[in-house]
Amino acid sequence: MRIAELSRRTGVPVPTIKYYLREGLVPAGERTSPNQARYDESHVHRVRLVRALVEVGGLSITAAKDVVELMHADGRTPLESIGKVHFAVLAAGQPHTPPADETAVDELIERRGWQVRPTNPARGALAGVLDHFARLGQPDALSLLDTYADAAERLADAEVNTLTGQDVDRMAEQVVMMTVLGNALLAALRGLAQESAATERF
Amino acid sequence: MRIAELSRRTGVPVPTIKYYLREGLVPAGERTSPNQARYDESHVHRVRLVRALVEVGGLSITAAKDVVELMHADGRTPLESIGKVHFAVLAAGQPHTPPADETAVDELIERRGWQVRPTNPARGALAGVLDHFARLGQPDALSLLDTYADAAERLADAEVNTLTGQDVDRMAEQVVMMTVLGNALLAALRGLAQESAATERF
Repeated sequence: MRIAELSRRTGVPVPTIKYYLREGLVPAGERTSPNQARYDESHVHRVRLVRALVEVGGLSITAAKDVVELMHADGRTPLESIGKVHFAVLAAGQPHTPPADETAVDELIERRGWQVRPTNPARGALAGVLDHFARLGQPDALSLLDTYADAAERLADAEVNTLTGQDVDRMAEQVVMMTVLGNALLAALRGLAQESAATERF
Repeated sequence: MRIAELSRRTGVPVPTIKYYLREGLVPAGERTSPNQARYDESHVHRVRLVRALVEVGGLSITAAKDVVELMHADGRTPLESIGKVHFAVLAAGQPHTPPADETAVDELIERRGWQVRPTNPARGALAGVLDHFARLGQPDALSLLDTYADAAERLADAEVNTLTGQDVDRMAEQVVMMTVLGNALLAALRGLAQESAATERF
């Protein structure tokens, strides 16, 4: 298909697709003339993926490029590959907070019996959020920490279950989607469930 | 205290605090001379709150101002007031996706028996995310929709429980924190729990 059709199929404007192509977020199409190229289903898929990362996940173009490149990197074992993609997408999506004390994070990880490497970017993100809660004097929120951790644990088990028995490229994409879109999904569901719970209560 | 001390206490640079003051995000201090003002604990608290909204929640200055103003608006019943703050912070934090079909959202709300007004901004956010999942052909992720909804429901119940028996200003702040910081908290915890679950499994 031509670029106009690729735009129609994905809902992404032609100039945006050209920008993705220039930045290497979407691989070049097959040249059919000096000014034209042909695209296929893999391009449709990639454009949609990049759009989800940028639009829903709020990733910068640079961060989205890092993630997409890692998703298709060769030369590693499948598990190493998935792990690198996971950490990249966690690092890309985390809030920009200054480094905070990670003692409470280490304690939580130990209390939960979680197996987490020291390089997991979510450690720093969690430390930053806990620091904000503490400064704001929100002890009630912190008392819910294990309730949140229970939910995270239950979801992670279900998510990992759906990963088994798939090829690496597919798994990598699913990890990205569950992390980035999963956060947005959960945030939206919480917004609905919170209203409902408050309506019932008050 | 002077502005330098306010900066030291909050970790927010003086020029940023001056910007918050100019934009009305932080109320003016008590003038002690034409070039100096005195600030108190309420200013420390407000600066920390704004910083959390902007830094962790990724809210724009305009959105943070809307939320902060609603948090301290008079002339409504407490419940109306809290509801407005909740919707404002949901609207401020949601991804910028074009309007999507809300049929799947209506179905989910009915299936869960949730009481949600048509104006809840999370409806549109959820529709947008579901649309991205569907386009990317991620049926496994959608099969987890009710697992995510279970988690949202459980968390909402626990969150609403901690709200009872507090004054309105305090409740409003807690709603903002649980929505904005709660999402960041959950995202970070998921990032850790996902690694742990994957390590155990593979």
